[in-house]
Amino acid sequence: MNKSRRNFVALGGAGLVAATVSGPLNLTQAQAQSQTLKSQTGRITGDAPARPTHKVHTLNGWTLPYRWKNGVKEFHLIAEEIEHEFAPGTKVKCWGYNGSTPGPTIEAVEGDRVRILVTNGLKEHTSVHWHGILLPSGMDGVSGLNQPAIKPGETFAYEFTLKQHGTHMYHPHADEMTQMAVGMMGMFIIHPKEEAQPIDRDYCLLLHNWAVHPGTYRPDPAVMVEFDLWTFNSKVFPGIDPLVARTGERVRVRIGNLSMWNHPIHMHGVQFQVTGSDGGRWPENQWRRESTEIVGVGQTRDIEFIAEPGDWAFHCHMSHHTMNAMGHEVPNTLGVDQRGVEQDIRKMLPGFIAMGRHGMAEHQEHVDAGHHPGPPNTLPMMTGKGPYGNLEMGGMFTMVKVRDHITPGDFSDPGWYDTPDGTQASRVSSDPTFGDPPRRPG
Amino acid sequence: MNKSRRNFVALGGAGLVAATVSGPLNLTQAQAQSQTLKSQTGRITGDAPARPTHKVHTLNGWTLPYRWKNGVKEFHLIAEEIEHEFAPGTKVKCWGYNGSTPGPTIEAVEGDRVRILVTNGLKEHTSVHWHGILLPSGMDGVSGLNQPAIKPGETFAYEFTLKQHGTHMYHPHADEMTQMAVGMMGMFIIHPKEEAQPIDRDYCLLLHNWAVHPGTYRPDPAVMVEFDLWTFNSKVFPGIDPLVARTGERVRVRIGNLSMWNHPIHMHGVQFQVTGSDGGRWPENQWRRESTEIVGVGQTRDIEFIAEPGDWAFHCHMSHHTMNAMGHEVPNTLGVDQRGVEQDIRKMLPGFIAMGRHGMAEHQEHVDAGHHPGPPNTLPMMTGKGPYGNLEMGGMFTMVKVRDHITPGDFSDPGWYDTPDGTQASRVSSDPTFGDPPRRPG
Amino acid sequence: MNKSRRNFVALGGAGLVAATVSGPLNLTQAQAQSQTLKSQTGRITGDAPARPTHKVHTLNGWTLPYRWKNGVKEFHLIAEEIEHEFAPGTKVKCWGYNGSTPGPTIEAVEGDRVRILVTNGLKEHTSVHWHGILLPSGMDGVSGLNQPAIKPGETFAYEFTLKQHGTHMYHPHADEMTQMAVGMMGMFIIHPKEEAQPIDRDYCLLLHNWAVHPGTYRPDPAVMVEFDLWTFNSKVFPGIDPLVARTGERVRVRIGNLSMWNHPIHMHGVQFQVTGSDGGRWPENQWRRESTEIVGVGQTRDIEFIAEPGDWAFHCHMSHHTMNAMGHEVPNTLGVDQRGVEQDIRKMLPGFIAMGRHGMAEHQEHVDAGHHPGPPNTLPMMTGKGPYGNLEMGGMFTMVKVRDHITPGDFSDPGWYDTPDGTQASRVSSDPTFGDPPRRPG
Repeated sequence: MNKSRRNFVALGGAGLVAATVSGPLNLTQAQAQSQTLKSQTGRITGDAPARPTHKVHTLNGWTLPYRWKNGVKEFHLIAEEIEHEFAPGTKVKCWGYNGSTPGPTIEAVEGDRVRILVTNGLKEHTSVHWHGILLPSGMDGVSGLNQPAIKPGETFAYEFTLKQHGTHMYHPHADEMTQMAVGMMGMFIIHPKEEAQPIDRDYCLLLHNWAVHPGTYRPDPAVMVEFDLWTFNSKVFPGIDPLVARTGERVRVRIGNLSMWNHPIHMHGVQFQVTGSDGGRWPENQWRRESTEIVGVGQTRDIEFIAEPGDWAFHCHMSHHTMNAMGHEVPNTLGVDQRGVEQDIRKMLPGFIAMGRHGMAEHQEHVDAGHHPGPPNTLPMMTGKGPYGNLEMGGMFTMVKVRDHITPGDFSDPGWYDTPDGTQASRVSSDPTFGDPPRRPG
Repeated sequence: MNKSRRNFVALGGAGLVAATVSGPLNLTQAQAQSQTLKSQTGRITGDAPARPTHKVHTLNGWTLPYRWKNGVKEFHLIAEEIEHEFAPGTKVKCWGYNGSTPGPTIEAVEGDRVRILVTNGLKEHTSVHWHGILLPSGMDGVSGLNQPAIKPGETFAYEFTLKQHGTHMYHPHADEMTQMAVGMMGMFIIHPKEEAQPIDRDYCLLLHNWAVHPGTYRPDPAVMVEFDLWTFNSKVFPGIDPLVARTGERVRVRIGNLSMWNHPIHMHGVQFQVTGSDGGRWPENQWRRESTEIVGVGQTRDIEFIAEPGDWAFHCHMSHHTMNAMGHEVPNTLGVDQRGVEQDIRKMLPGFIAMGRHGMAEHQEHVDAGHHPGPPNTLPMMTGKGPYGNLEMGGMFTMVKVRDHITPGDFSDPGWYDTPDGTQASRVSSDPTFGDPPRRPG
Repeated sequence: MNKSRRNFVALGGAGLVAATVSGPLNLTQAQAQSQTLKSQTGRITGDAPARPTHKVHTLNGWTLPYRWKNGVKEFHLIAEEIEHEFAPGTKVKCWGYNGSTPGPTIEAVEGDRVRILVTNGLKEHTSVHWHGILLPSGMDGVSGLNQPAIKPGETFAYEFTLKQHGTHMYHPHADEMTQMAVGMMGMFIIHPKEEAQPIDRDYCLLLHNWAVHPGTYRPDPAVMVEFDLWTFNSKVFPGIDPLVARTGERVRVRIGNLSMWNHPIHMHGVQFQVTGSDGGRWPENQWRRESTEIVGVGQTRDIEFIAEPGDWAFHCHMSHHTMNAMGHEVPNTLGVDQRGVEQDIRKMLPGFIAMGRHGMAEHQEHVDAGHHPGPPNTLPMMTGKGPYGNLEMGGMFTMVKVRDHITPGDFSDPGWYDTPDGTQASRVSSDPTFGDPPRRPG
């Protein structure tokens, strides 16, 4: 068998699928496999000497197929410009790998020899740094320091043996500020030869921020602090998939951060354990119980929990990071009666709607009613619908949806939770003077 | 006894006080109790089946009384607009609960069944999320997802059994960005049935930030990063109470953060242990010795220490967070001789005082002398007096005041520390050429 | 022997050198010692009752000599204005101690009695807080609270016994916002009487940020968030020394943070252990394996690793913090064909160079070619040369340079790493259509 003709193999699914084809790689076939495998168990069987026990599910993303070549797992990344949709309604020119931002997740196993080809499809040079991975200095990817930069059109090969396991990342180390600001990054998961403890669902996501100013079509790399979009795997709510699990399953979420903020990630409904980082799985006596974990820039954090039935919010807890783009320099309208002004402004700006006297919840209502279109290519600041009305969210927000009956390996959205009787907050009065709530003592 | 007529009970003080009244709740009475109890031990006795061993002292705040109803502890929160004083000299229209921001601390005990009535006294809808607490999905408080929003004038009931202990929070999950920006938040402390280790003083405080621009009267919810006021329990120095303790007492400070920054909280004079979070009290082998702990947004942290005699600064260590509102876009005057300019500017701006050639310490001196009044309703950037002169502080700054003789349960300010002879930094020379301090080589 | 005439002693080097002179301290001599000792082992021998086992190497800095006085180690700090070079090409008026920013590192040993004289050579009052150190309240250095401020020209004495060991800091607690913003800070290392584990190289560095706007000569203390320069020991890359080690050595890096951001410090090539803080060395079961550690403001962190051969990047992972000053409000040029515009603008601004259509890597190329001089006294945004081309870095960036053959105690730059054959990423194709990288499925 001509090994160079061996097809790419989607890592994951029911087994290691090594298709042999006689012509150039049929990508559609590999893609189809990847798609199919997405809804399967994640358990890997087969005859490869070292093999992952579980497959990572990259939220809104995918795992990069590889080729076996003389005992080496060969991956092929291509850096390139892409059109990326943050959520329906906003498409932006970004840079990524292999057609997506984040780039595909690389999955391999401790002990593997890996070769990663990197083709530069951009118009400026680049390089790839394998963040957190132990390797020879010359493979570390800092252009100028460890290697020459990869010029446009060139392909470089990185090759090293994996001496560790854990949650890692990859990103450029050449014009890093620009290339990361526009989306070049991905995750690199190294599975242990044997999992210490079975994980039923293994999610991963990358945190990022983007200066996509309202009405524009490219991220602005010069912004340092006040970003417009805050993303999980380059998606904003409601464009982010939910994390699905069956009641009682052990779920791991691997979170990496290549943004400009140390994001505190909060999960409702459980106390999770913080179990590891790119330093691998920590000893169990170091696991920390939390409901919110700061994932620092350049850090990864693994969190694990036993799934409890329900629909649970999962988000960054900085409240502006669960919003979409907004004006930060608009006058404060809280408490301001704008009724007379509204008509006057409307003469100059047809369609202008006064807003925000009693809060900003009406923003989503105006958008829904078509009264507040906003600039083109711009998501509403607050959006999303739940079973009980507006969610008024955006950005780094999604849900963990846990049900008693979900097929192992099924990641499809199960819809809304059917709250059991007697377990939901409900109205006990419509009388504003109801009860006698105590006020603060004088 | 008609249980629905049972009065609210202030949790804390010398015992569980369950007053029965025949009419509607006499709030003044409950308030008076709360006031009285503040200065007592915090130890709870009485015949309730599960009871807190210690009472939390909410700095500048209060604990919400409850009613017993058929074995359920019933609390009643009301969301409403309030006038809040950040420190003497600045009153602002905020939103809070039951007349205050932060809202009253809710205290209960692991195993308790609690019911919390929430009346919406605002002019837009709201909800309450019980941050970090394990409960049924329908009680989790994300409006739209877990429940319909609470409309103005409505009262909702939340009810669940407490399955954990630790330091938790509550806040809206509806128009969250606005409602939190203007002050809606509180702490929810769940005591264990039995404390593993006696705690002599148990403080709690919430971190927050506010865009109350100089000369304005309402917080601006659109600000994301550059805030004006940084607060402990919605107060700025010198409006913040000190933390008082007796020498040798074991003190716990429970710190929650619902701001937009991960604040590093620093304490002078001790190495504290970080002992827990909303994940409860950590095993002792996980306690970390620190003098500064980052409390991430959406996190809580418990720190504990043995009180050492003295007056010890306790503050966020980001230096601009121990200041009050300031101009961030003023020209840099350091090193600039402004004497000629000062007279010229004064012709246009009577009262103008040149400042800052040699530093900003003169700011407080000018304010004290009445030369630099600033906009109305605006605190000086640097303020506060100590026994030895100006403190030049503001924002997230207070003191831990420890004395050898303080009555258990007495939280009143003991005044300034009387430094023992020979233990204070003092002047040894007024000659600028004194000694021969070595300079940097070459 | 007249003890008051005893000379300052450089802590470190081959022994405790206690020179006696008959006149005032000959600073040049002490300085020469310090310089000489820098390149030595760091192991301390001699007859002092308590002595450090290892000498700390302050990157780009120095250790403050002391005098023995009746069993007390006496140090002398002087606060003063200095001219400081951030990197060749940028000199700025800062404030520091004893001629430098950061001030010299103070090193002492657990159990020592220390006296620190502080002379105020500024034109406004100051004080010194010994951050994280256990001492009497009156020695804690908060002016107004613990002591009167030190007026210009005065000298104060602080004296206390060291009851702990670990990595600590010192800085003013008077007009703190200004005085820290312009560079007043230093490290205070307390060695244990006996090291639990031999450390072969013991580095220390302080994180800071500066608002030195392009073309200006003084830091602007009013900036709170968006800084221009991000520094290790007040230096930006390429003005920062490398951390040098021999293969297999145990290296500790002590990192303190007195900036306004919680910086995530990342190291390539190793998994380090986080081993301690200003709370001292943590028990070994608390050490955490990481490749990135957040060092919070007001925190210190000790990290330790076994040196691996190579040139390894060491930097803050916030990508804008490894850049020098840049315009954050310039229009976004990514994807914009500026060719026609460039000529037009050049008529008005001779020398104008269009830039950034395909990324910002060309910035450094333009600077190298002399086409983009920038404002006076301003470093290029992206700079630095490695063995393989431009590094495109700045700010908080340096390298750990590890070689098999380095003399113990030699801290001089060994030049670039000679990458062994077969261990370096290299070009495998110049054909842009090489291979068949899989694209994202459907």
